[in-house]
Amino acid sequence: MKAPRFRKEAAVFFFFFCLLAVCQTFPTPADRDTLMILEQFQFTGGNLLTTEKELQVNYILKKIKGKEIMEGMKTGKFAPAMHFFRAKELIEQSPVFNIIQMMPKGAGLHLHEYALLSVDWLVKNATYLPNCYICFTPVGGVRFHYFHRMQQRKMVNCSEWVLLEQYRRQIQNVTEFDNSLMRNLTLITENPEEAYQSQNIIWQRFSDAFAAASSLISYAPVFKTYFYEALKEFYHDNVQYIEIRALLLPVYELDGTLQNKTWSIMAYHEVARQFKDDHPDFMGTKVIFSVHRKSNNTEMKTAIYEAMELYNKFPETMAGFDMVGHEDAGHPLWYFRNELSIPAKLGVKLPYFFHAGETDWEGVHVDENILDALLLNTSRIGHGYSINKHLVAKQLSQKLDVALEVCPISNQVLMLVSNLQNHPAAALMAEGHPMVISADDPAVFGARGLSYDFYEAFMGIGGLKAELTTLRQLALNSINYSAMSAQMKVEAIKLWQKKWDQFLDAVVHMFNSDEL
Amino acid sequence: MKAPRFRKEAAVFFFFFCLLAVCQTFPTPADRDTLMILEQFQFTGGNLLTTEKELQVNYILKKIKGKEIMEGMKTGKFAPAMHFFRAKELIEQSPVFNIIQMMPKGAGLHLHEYALLSVDWLVKNATYLPNCYICFTPVGGVRFHYFHRMQQRKMVNCSEWVLLEQYRRQIQNVTEFDNSLMRNLTLITENPEEAYQSQNIIWQRFSDAFAAASSLISYAPVFKTYFYEALKEFYHDNVQYIEIRALLLPVYELDGTLQNKTWSIMAYHEVARQFKDDHPDFMGTKVIFSVHRKSNNTEMKTAIYEAMELYNKFPETMAGFDMVGHEDAGHPLWYFRNELSIPAKLGVKLPYFFHAGETDWEGVHVDENILDALLLNTSRIGHGYSINKHLVAKQLSQKLDVALEVCPISNQVLMLVSNLQNHPAAALMAEGHPMVISADDPAVFGARGLSYDFYEAFMGIGGLKAELTTLRQLALNSINYSAMSAQMKVEAIKLWQKKWDQFLDAVVHMFNSDEL
Repeated sequence: MKAPRFRKEAAVFFFFFCLLAVCQTFPTPADRDTLMILEQFQFTGGNLLTTEKELQVNYILKKIKGKEIMEGMKTGKFAPAMHFFRAKELIEQSPVFNIIQMMPKGAGLHLHEYALLSVDWLVKNATYLPNCYICFTPVGGVRFHYFHRMQQRKMVNCSEWVLLEQYRRQIQNVTEFDNSLMRNLTLITENPEEAYQSQNIIWQRFSDAFAAASSLISYAPVFKTYFYEALKEFYHDNVQYIEIRALLLPVYELDGTLQNKTWSIMAYHEVARQFKDDHPDFMGTKVIFSVHRKSNNTEMKTAIYEAMELYNKFPETMAGFDMVGHEDAGHPLWYFRNELSIPAKLGVKLPYFFHAGETDWEGVHVDENILDALLLNTSRIGHGYSINKHLVAKQLSQKLDVALEVCPISNQVLMLVSNLQNHPAAALMAEGHPMVISADDPAVFGARGLSYDFYEAFMGIGGLKAELTTLRQLALNSINYSAMSAQMKVEAIKLWQKKWDQFLDAVVHMFNSDEL
Repeated sequence: MKAPRFRKEAAVFFFFFCLLAVCQTFPTPADRDTLMILEQFQFTGGNLLTTEKELQVNYILKKIKGKEIMEGMKTGKFAPAMHFFRAKELIEQSPVFNIIQMMPKGAGLHLHEYALLSVDWLVKNATYLPNCYICFTPVGGVRFHYFHRMQQRKMVNCSEWVLLEQYRRQIQNVTEFDNSLMRNLTLITENPEEAYQSQNIIWQRFSDAFAAASSLISYAPVFKTYFYEALKEFYHDNVQYIEIRALLLPVYELDGTLQNKTWSIMAYHEVARQFKDDHPDFMGTKVIFSVHRKSNNTEMKTAIYEAMELYNKFPETMAGFDMVGHEDAGHPLWYFRNELSIPAKLGVKLPYFFHAGETDWEGVHVDENILDALLLNTSRIGHGYSINKHLVAKQLSQKLDVALEVCPISNQVLMLVSNLQNHPAAALMAEGHPMVISADDPAVFGARGLSYDFYEAFMGIGGLKAELTTLRQLALNSINYSAMSAQMKVEAIKLWQKKWDQFLDAVVHMFNSDEL
């Protein structure tokens, strides 16, 4: 499952052997082949053994992929080099995407609770429930709330609440209105470069879309159905397990009753169990309790104590703790070093899954998060986009086997990088650095499940060097680096392997390799 | 001058020491400081010792730089994150740029012969010479030629040759016409993303601008003056030495006589000597004979024999051999392995300075150029943009001390990367990988000398981690990795050191550190 221990040493041995050969004589084609094999060997998945069937599928995949990349190189129209909003249609036409959709992808380890499920479900279902009110904010956003009685409306701060049912009856074009709601819940726009002129601007819009979604999802009946439907969407995208970052904000009942964090954790647990009952080939879900990185030290201290308590009470569902929000604009991790060291000081276990390095700004305060996350003993790194600029952090992450959660589409849409061929994970993949692929907020970006991000990673970040074994390694990584228990991992791998074998058969069946 | 030999070993020792400390206990601020110092130590220039005066200037520089970066982070308007055509004005207002202009930058090692000098000189001088004809090409480009007699015009293939002097007399707005000529000689445009929709498209326009410039510069009287003026522009930008890639195309006299490659080499030599006589604090120039990578094997063989002959005849001026043109569209280096191995087989010395890895397309044929350049014993790598995706090539380049010639603005304008904070050299700088900064084709991009590229490298690629020692190391690298003889390098360093000391004094004099 994991890269065998001898890998690095073998590589180094090979390397000096080759170096010696190169320096002594003019290189022969055989020298060159050796070096190229060595390079491929160190690539993510490059050292995995393959079955006969895998070789067959790899042959098919390489043919199709090569054709698509060469076409992109010739025409200049290549999805990973384009903004996802423009590339999406192109991706959907790709046979490589089709294969990736079919493939069992293992686990989605970096996802946020309010952006799991395509927004049309929210608009077409949640906003059509009785008692759903809307309020238009001065900056062009929307908020929703379900009220049972008129007087409740004063309790929730917004300029004017209108009953949606009534509002829809008054307007001429309900379809257009519903589409506008969907736009409010995503970042999708025709000309993103013009609409979002800076990272600060897009993060404002991003937070607003989040707030709009959360105002619907925080209604107890929506909350549970939303999560069930989200699991279904991932399940249909051939994902076997997810871990979600959740703020655990109060969920409310129609009568105004507010539920606490325990209620939310239990609701997640219950829905996941129900889903697993209905779909036995799904592995389940875990929650990473997260607070905003703009919190102050007192709030952080409270959150850490709550997190320890929840982790103790719900070990099956609670995976650990993290901080969320625009990294550049928030406090650096080191600002909370005292609060974050409380569990260690008390000898209490609380795994961390810190976002870190989601920035282009090398050397500023928040840019040290990448090192600090490791110093604070993080189990994985959310994004780690800037890690290549931090040699010590990169070495620590490799040696301590702390995987990065790479979210290509998120990094592109949130303006860290435009052409995904330039994503820093390309260098990390070349080194076989521990990583998993995830989708961050698929709903807000107009994606669905993990397939779009896997496509971008496989085609754009990996380039022609990424083969079937890269996909296999990424899927296996996602289980290996998850917060599942050891026993659960064994089960998950077993389940995944079965699905993988079926997937291989399906690809061979679909593509006649003679025709390629 | 160079990084001391113990650097890497010391770093590794430190690293494991720190790793041990980290794993055993919860990290203290002191652990963190140690790791951060280690990271800074491995950064380009991070291990250079500093004088008192350098510390003083570094203090000033860090203040000014920090302010500019923080402002960019806040406003979202940060030159290295913007397209150079839009960023240029902003850069010119920057006090950091001002300091970089004053700084002795050493050598410019990656430059092309027809794009050295700002195009206004060509338009305002060369096109106003007697006998200058213009021809408008069907794709909206221009070509120039100097003819003495009418009948000569038929010999040079273009639809219709018009005497410029006469043409200018007929048109209403000569200034506007001259500006249009300047636009033809550069890629500058208001909306580059719209004008150049793919790398293939911009490379076509790029080649056309080159052809237009070369049609002026290939006229013998222009040829020599152009080169003298180019040296002046670099000299005034505080550059002490340059190496140019030159196709050595036939230069023609007014009577139609064509001069050969020997003539061109001698002309470069002569002009450089004259310039050095006039400016004793300039170190000179060398030429890297280059052929187009679309050449066939026979042409390449001829070129290699010519190169060996020229290298033998003009050891002082000829530095070696390279290939030029759009890498993605040309033959890979390996295609010419037989021709390129001729010198080694004959036991004749011919240093190579291969362009390699100027591509976003990982794993395609030309992407192996980066490894092949090293296998073919290149002295430096032109660009090496893709090297992070090639672990073996990267390790070879580091171990064999083969420097990359990093040209930030060129990579951005030619659409390899949009935000220079994402340039792969950022990771290389963090590792202290051997590199120099150069400008490639400053004239075509609207830059001048090396200062703009140094600014982008210092602010965008290096981020806040790059300090005065980074600039010093980059300047010293440029001398160290040049094709100068050992003795010439000693002289160059001596000259540079004197200028560096003057530069430090000037900065201290200009900025009152109390006021910062």
